Amino acid sequence: LTGRKHWIGNAHRAGVIATFAQTPVERGGKTVHRPTAFIIRPDMPGFSVVGTVRKLGVRGSTQAELIYDSLQVPADHVLGAVGKGFGVAVHVLNGGRLTLAAGCTAGTKTILGQMVSFAEERVQFGRPIADFEITQRKIARTASDAYAADAMLGELARLAESPDGEFALEAACCKVFASEMLWRAADEMVQVAGGRGFVKPYPYERTLRDSRINRIFEGTNEILRLFIALNGIEGPAHKLKELGGALRKPIRNLGLISGFAASRIASRLGSTPTLDMELHDRLAGHARHFEKHVAELTVASARLIRAHREQIVERQMELERLSDMAIELFATACVLARTERLLDERGESECEYELALCDLFVVDAGRRFRASRTALQSPQDDLRRAVARGARDAGGYGVESAIFPETLP
Amino acid sequence: LTGRKHWIGNAHRAGVIATFAQTPVERGGKTVHRPTAFIIRPDMPGFSVVGTVRKLGVRGSTQAELIYDSLQVPADHVLGAVGKGFGVAVHVLNGGRLTLAAGCTAGTKTILGQMVSFAEERVQFGRPIADFEITQRKIARTASDAYAADAMLGELARLAESPDGEFALEAACCKVFASEMLWRAADEMVQVAGGRGFVKPYPYERTLRDSRINRIFEGTNEILRLFIALNGIEGPAHKLKELGGALRKPIRNLGLISGFAASRIASRLGSTPTLDMELHDRLAGHARHFEKHVAELTVASARLIRAHREQIVERQMELERLSDMAIELFATACVLARTERLLDERGESECEYELALCDLFVVDAGRRFRASRTALQSPQDDLRRAVARGARDAGGYGVESAIFPETLP
Repeated sequence: LTGRKHWIGNAHRAGVIATFAQTPVERGGKTVHRPTAFIIRPDMPGFSVVGTVRKLGVRGSTQAELIYDSLQVPADHVLGAVGKGFGVAVHVLNGGRLTLAAGCTAGTKTILGQMVSFAEERVQFGRPIADFEITQRKIARTASDAYAADAMLGELARLAESPDGEFALEAACCKVFASEMLWRAADEMVQVAGGRGFVKPYPYERTLRDSRINRIFEGTNEILRLFIALNGIEGPAHKLKELGGALRKPIRNLGLISGFAASRIASRLGSTPTLDMELHDRLAGHARHFEKHVAELTVASARLIRAHREQIVERQMELERLSDMAIELFATACVLARTERLLDERGESECEYELALCDLFVVDAGRRFRASRTALQSPQDDLRRAVARGARDAGGYGVESAIFPETLP
Repeated sequence: LTGRKHWIGNAHRAGVIATFAQTPVERGGKTVHRPTAFIIRPDMPGFSVVGTVRKLGVRGSTQAELIYDSLQVPADHVLGAVGKGFGVAVHVLNGGRLTLAAGCTAGTKTILGQMVSFAEERVQFGRPIADFEITQRKIARTASDAYAADAMLGELARLAESPDGEFALEAACCKVFASEMLWRAADEMVQVAGGRGFVKPYPYERTLRDSRINRIFEGTNEILRLFIALNGIEGPAHKLKELGGALRKPIRNLGLISGFAASRIASRLGSTPTLDMELHDRLAGHARHFEKHVAELTVASARLIRAHREQIVERQMELERLSDMAIELFATACVLARTERLLDERGESECEYELALCDLFVVDAGRRFRASRTALQSPQDDLRRAVARGARDAGGYGVESAIFPETLP
């Protein structure tokens, strides 16, 4: 092996390092390059750590830069099979996204506890700030989001445990949702604490710093949104014969292959034993909206494919919105299934708080879904491209300041 | 003077400190307490600095805690007049909010320049990431927001320079808008830079940390939103005779008195010399939407007052949305006036980029306005209150985890 790798968490103190590298393999009589996973020990000749970096947060771990210089790996150090590293990577990434989402969810619950106690103790205008509606809004959003993330995690854990469990799409949805939720909660906690949110030794500023990385690592949320949308599109796209193989290739180029379709998110409600249940009357209204939204997502996906054909992979603004729609739907499906199970176990009268969390989340998620759907093919996207073009040409803002008009001497 | 004061920027190294304290004054034959502004020198007996705090950002300045222990202030150290400190404070805060907004706007322009150059240089999937639409969306949002903040600042600077210039409401709108814009831009810059956004010595993580305080100091954006909404409401409220003096008192209790009404934001377009101009045909469509939105804000304010009467001050969820609507309108008015001036000076063909910035901002602001208006009196507010109540009762999240169902041993 010869090459460099940045951003390897704790690699300078690792006893074992998994490394992916391109290897020549024979496919159909031709030699091509495919990734292989290798196990590396830091005492192998040719391995060295160049340096580590100082970071905004998660300072208990270190990001190292590694050098491989003609490092010879014995055959028994191959993880899986030669040329089959992509499958290993997908497996690792799925697991990583699941645990990352679980960490973000646990973190959000912790923040929620801090938010409630801080707001009960901090008095302004003669009352605890928890009495004020702005604080209550922040608490309510954080709690209902945590309820949804928790429900998604429960579903993911079941998928990951089943022997032929494929859950790349769900893990991506959950990672994006949970990492953005944690960041929002940490940010709101700083705001609730005001000056105390900004200073040490209060824990809130550190939580904010530590939370930030989750939107970046294990796949940035931008890349994951493309992954979700393109996988969601792939199913319907194959039904449109005129596209033929044109769509598969650019998607494969982004490394975004999987067998999922957006409609599969919908079928979740009926496809697994735990979700295959008649919904309680109390949830019937939500279920109707949910089914309507699923149908709208299918129609919207098909319309986008017809409009852009193989150029769809370039239409990232639309893909982002499609992805946001899919994430809200997956979260809603999980929340409904989770709440149904609790109703089933305890009865309606013992689920008052959970029903409020469910109602609030599902209505808000539906509102966000509709906003994305309305904006899906936005006439303003051309404006966005034009403004970006203008800023790129100007190398930045490029407009004269309004404070100093040129009529001044 | 006897007392303590937290969070005083750079006070441990200041040669002169302005301090506000309650002083007894006679009003209508009775002795009441009113604030007075004093000038303090740090060598005065009774003054001491207890300590300073370590912070998330803006580490070039220090927040000190001060003690005043039977400090005697000579009569010639009174700033303004005894009992008239409130006016001094308002004046200082208006100036502070204006300069803070100017700093946030300049910071956003700097970030925009960084974002463009980083995105041009950083190559992924064989192309600079500036070629990808997700990056373009981020650049476009940042640029059009900066254009709006710039326009607001120009208007504010004119108001502040006029001899009888009252601009508390406008300064508050601009402070909220610009501080949230800077934070959003700094956050997007971190995301554009990915791993490099999170680590030193790249400047992006520091910019994020430094940006955060602006939403907190010179009045948190939460308090400023209440200030904007309650001042906006005050005008229409006085027309409703049945309310009598009931509304003034709770507002004064929050220290939020000013002579402005929401409708004044609208009249800005016609009330100052610089804005009193016929709009270019190119902006006529925007102007119609704007006028419609102004009328809707007036109706919505009146409806809220009728619905809640003196209890309006408690309805912070609705007040926040009203405030968001007012901020978008003020920003839109400034953007239209600024663009009109540029069109007037240069002609349409030389304003292509500025027109794109204007169009994008005004349409997006209109969309946000309508979303707030739709949500203004939200049936989900009761749910939000119920969820907050549940979380407060539980001292935090209070729901069992979905990953470990109780059916496990």
